[in-house]
Amino acid sequence: MPIQHLPKIRAVRSLATTRFFQIEAVDLTFSNGTEVEFERLTGKGQGAVLVVPITADGQIVLIREYACGTERYELGLPKGRIELDEPILVAANRELMEEAGFGAENLIFLRELTSAPAYSGQRTQVVLAMGLYPARLQGDEPEPLEVVFWPLVDLDQLAVDERCSEARSIAALYLVRAYLAEQLSEHAQGLPDAEPIHE
Amino acid sequence: MPIQHLPKIRAVRSLATTRFFQIEAVDLTFSNGTEVEFERLTGKGQGAVLVVPITADGQIVLIREYACGTERYELGLPKGRIELDEPILVAANRELMEEAGFGAENLIFLRELTSAPAYSGQRTQVVLAMGLYPARLQGDEPEPLEVVFWPLVDLDQLAVDERCSEARSIAALYLVRAYLAEQLSEHAQGLPDAEPIHE
Repeated sequence: MPIQHLPKIRAVRSLATTRFFQIEAVDLTFSNGTEVEFERLTGKGQGAVLVVPITADGQIVLIREYACGTERYELGLPKGRIELDEPILVAANRELMEEAGFGAENLIFLRELTSAPAYSGQRTQVVLAMGLYPARLQGDEPEPLEVVFWPLVDLDQLAVDERCSEARSIAALYLVRAYLAEQLSEHAQGLPDAEPIHE
Repeated sequence: MPIQHLPKIRAVRSLATTRFFQIEAVDLTFSNGTEVEFERLTGKGQGAVLVVPITADGQIVLIREYACGTERYELGLPKGRIELDEPILVAANRELMEEAGFGAENLIFLRELTSAPAYSGQRTQVVLAMGLYPARLQGDEPEPLEVVFWPLVDLDQLAVDERCSEARSIAALYLVRAYLAEQLSEHAQGLPDAEPIHE
């Protein structure tokens, strides 16, 4: 792919700041000379962590939580804000304990996802959690969250279920399925071939 | 899953309104009596459409576009706002022509995705586009977008490529792959079995 020259940011102005949100206006000049003014949400704080907990028998651990933006209960993965100076994997384990009641012996960072990067600086770190054990931390949830188990082999059915609508959860689950399939495949290739049986 | 009683919304107040964004404060009482105040972005307008264009030889049509929220070029799917009274499939074909330079003979609505539903009402309609033909409409892009073809069979590689980071694009691509795999499987099952050959 050819190198594209980043637009030049001429000015950034704060338009509104609330407890949770910050909106900016950005004046840009593209490399072809076109001048535009965009608006964007800044990524306040350290961003978010999204946890994909998988049990030893291949079940996804989902939570069902009220979502104020859509005014309904949403089935999705445990997630939350990363605190100042908190490492990603520590934040992942904390959110898993607060929201789902599990800790994880094995936490693996997979990748960073963005959401609507055209107008949002929000970043989400995706972490696979395995080796689960019961552990509960008190979070700031206004009511206890329902925990729902769903077989990872039935991910295609979950991904079209209207109770599970968030793009980040669906993307993260497919990332995990692809990661685990690759691990299994590498493991299988590493095994010695069965010896032919000579009678 | 047990029925959960929706929290009662006691009051909604506008906190800030800009050209693109609207932020509200929402006072809620959960069914256990807990009272909270949330902030949310309202889904202004008709929401967005996200198009997954697949060529006859199984290539995903991606675009590379500057994203002001992350201040870098992002590889993703054509998308944009649905206009007032514009049907979803019409909006999908329009965005496809404006951003990628293709029209589609075959447009299939797959599902609605949300983004961070805890604090955003944003909704995105995912549309599969096939039967592509060259067609260009002038959009409001500040510079021409680069078009990139990527084999759908190599989706797992794209989904971990840092140039392609948006959760909606990754989720929509896996939805399409699952949909097409199921169609192929149904088609194969619908074919009559080969007649046994009698010599």
